[in-house]
Amino acid sequence: MSIVTLLTDFGYRDWYVGSMKGVILGLAPHCTIVDITHEIPPGDVLRGALVLREACRFFPPLSVHVAIVDPGVGTSRKAIVARGGNMFFVGPDNGILSMAVELFEDKEVRAIEREELFLERVSDTFHGRDVFAPVAAFLAKGGEMMSLGRKLSEWVRIPFPEVTYTEAGLEGQVLHVDRFGNGVTNIPEKELRKIGEISSLRVSVEGLPHELRIRRTYAEVPLGSPLALVGSSGFLEIAVNGGDASKLLHLEPGKTRIRVLLE
Amino acid sequence: MSIVTLLTDFGYRDWYVGSMKGVILGLAPHCTIVDITHEIPPGDVLRGALVLREACRFFPPLSVHVAIVDPGVGTSRKAIVARGGNMFFVGPDNGILSMAVELFEDKEVRAIEREELFLERVSDTFHGRDVFAPVAAFLAKGGEMMSLGRKLSEWVRIPFPEVTYTEAGLEGQVLHVDRFGNGVTNIPEKELRKIGEISSLRVSVEGLPHELRIRRTYAEVPLGSPLALVGSSGFLEIAVNGGDASKLLHLEPGKTRIRVLLE
Amino acid sequence: MSIVTLLTDFGYRDWYVGSMKGVILGLAPHCTIVDITHEIPPGDVLRGALVLREACRFFPPLSVHVAIVDPGVGTSRKAIVARGGNMFFVGPDNGILSMAVELFEDKEVRAIEREELFLERVSDTFHGRDVFAPVAAFLAKGGEMMSLGRKLSEWVRIPFPEVTYTEAGLEGQVLHVDRFGNGVTNIPEKELRKIGEISSLRVSVEGLPHELRIRRTYAEVPLGSPLALVGSSGFLEIAVNGGDASKLLHLEPGKTRIRVLLE
Repeated sequence: MSIVTLLTDFGYRDWYVGSMKGVILGLAPHCTIVDITHEIPPGDVLRGALVLREACRFFPPLSVHVAIVDPGVGTSRKAIVARGGNMFFVGPDNGILSMAVELFEDKEVRAIEREELFLERVSDTFHGRDVFAPVAAFLAKGGEMMSLGRKLSEWVRIPFPEVTYTEAGLEGQVLHVDRFGNGVTNIPEKELRKIGEISSLRVSVEGLPHELRIRRTYAEVPLGSPLALVGSSGFLEIAVNGGDASKLLHLEPGKTRIRVLLE
Repeated sequence: MSIVTLLTDFGYRDWYVGSMKGVILGLAPHCTIVDITHEIPPGDVLRGALVLREACRFFPPLSVHVAIVDPGVGTSRKAIVARGGNMFFVGPDNGILSMAVELFEDKEVRAIEREELFLERVSDTFHGRDVFAPVAAFLAKGGEMMSLGRKLSEWVRIPFPEVTYTEAGLEGQVLHVDRFGNGVTNIPEKELRKIGEISSLRVSVEGLPHELRIRRTYAEVPLGSPLALVGSSGFLEIAVNGGDASKLLHLEPGKTRIRVLLE
Repeated sequence: MSIVTLLTDFGYRDWYVGSMKGVILGLAPHCTIVDITHEIPPGDVLRGALVLREACRFFPPLSVHVAIVDPGVGTSRKAIVARGGNMFFVGPDNGILSMAVELFEDKEVRAIEREELFLERVSDTFHGRDVFAPVAAFLAKGGEMMSLGRKLSEWVRIPFPEVTYTEAGLEGQVLHVDRFGNGVTNIPEKELRKIGEISSLRVSVEGLPHELRIRRTYAEVPLGSPLALVGSSGFLEIAVNGGDASKLLHLEPGKTRIRVLLE
């Protein structure tokens, strides 16, 4: 029983997700479909890429991850399939798959060119249903990725934004604000360890007058107080115990700078 | 393994959808439940009927579609089951199933009268759980539709709003605004083809001073510009590349008039 | 094929729910995962407990209910597993499971202590993925609850708020406002029956100048008018036909007092 995950910006109120699932289950009745999310803000490829990267690693081998945030649908942008480790990724060639696929040493990317797999009539605006759903079903049933199209050496990658080193320590940014208002940064735990003992570091959040110590868990500071911690994805996170850090500290993904300083 | 789809106005925050799924899986453990949406605005039967119509056609034979937007729950409105082609539809007799069922030439509608299938205690306000869920499970397990109740010749139909012909071309309306803000109209591609070559038509949107050409895909106009195109459901659609047409052009479902004109 | 239900405050927009499902399906590929809701307001343990209580009873034997609203994650709060009747409950020991488990006469609560079941690296902030998901998979595959840890006689219970009797009748409160704006109270049908014939009772809603009769269904009053009825969970409910009672009558969960009076 293989797994097909879906990550889109289609929302939950229209027929788009339902019709994709109908196509997949019609072709691969025994697969298990899992929604990662359909609430990527419309057209926000970067956000989709980040969420896919964090979600995919907890799925078992042979899972097929379909990710569709596709403002260029119907243009000449390619449709691609990728293998990373022993999982598959399907979506438009606009970078949405790239942060996930780049997690793996062993990877391969191919164009999706086998048009006889697609729905009979391919619309110009809904390749999720007409192209990507049938291709995902094909892979879920054990179809050969190799048969889908030629191998690509060039494809669109969104680089994961790396931290920069400064004299005082290192500098990163808020990457993602989650539903709790926590600001997940691009600063991995292992970079923190490179510059010093975690308990000895100080975190400076753009716009916040005082520095934060790195805690282990939310409840270590009083309710309503800000803190920094290493979050569940292994990145430094800015939070407020029992509150919404993005609102209280005005965190903005891709904008708010975070500096980590030696004491 | 049969499929049961759910479309309701129950939302995602309460126990309503969960308890329906519990009932269905208790009776038909091997079925696959698919959420079409639970975000139909409360009581909006027309919207439910439209979404069901667009979603259902992509499901495989023998799928059971349960649709519940039911402001008259507990009154004398009938509970019905319908067959359209080789799919089943279950819900209240208020028109919610009608746009989907009317897609099929070969159809049959019956009252749901076999009360011994229902939950032991039927509430007056939640037939989704107490009546429709067990009936859906019965059909998903291969139960005979015929055995559910007498055949109906009269049942509530919401007519699909047809386009009207004018001297200048044809006139329709915005039917549905989707999560991207695209305005899906009631003007099917085949009606467009009747009046002329699609590339030669002009689209006039109520309130928009200039006419639009019909494009193939969003990216054919500059970011932020409006366009018309034949959408993925086969209807004329009003959109804004990378933007929200419903906000920018003040599209209102059931209100905004759309005229298609020969050049 | 066993069922694992999920109820959290994780929302639908991040990778949290997806990664939990990946862990569960990796360990128990044949289970069916059902979302109760992921829209419990962040940290609202009481609301989570109420929704779980209402949803769980409609699931078949051996279902595993995972409920995670866990502001104290990473502190010394215990992780627990409970059996109520023939269903299992998994979550933090902060009361979220208690209203559901207390529905059952026959129950047992244990600490989750078998760390070798957990993910290899347990984060301090996401026990849903690292602790509760693998334990749920273990139970879904038929693992022995007894083997998870020692039996607890003390655990955190949120008492279900009982009604109080007054000379004039009884008094309760609005417990929950649902997506339709209906105010579900803590007054069960059987308490109503104790004080009199239901049709002879009058309901007084704090702030509403006139009393309401108890109706059987919404459509018994004119559109836009308030009413009281026994809702689908067996509790007195305050509603507005075709409208949002919480907005129109300013209902607040845990605050608005409701009195039921003999005529």
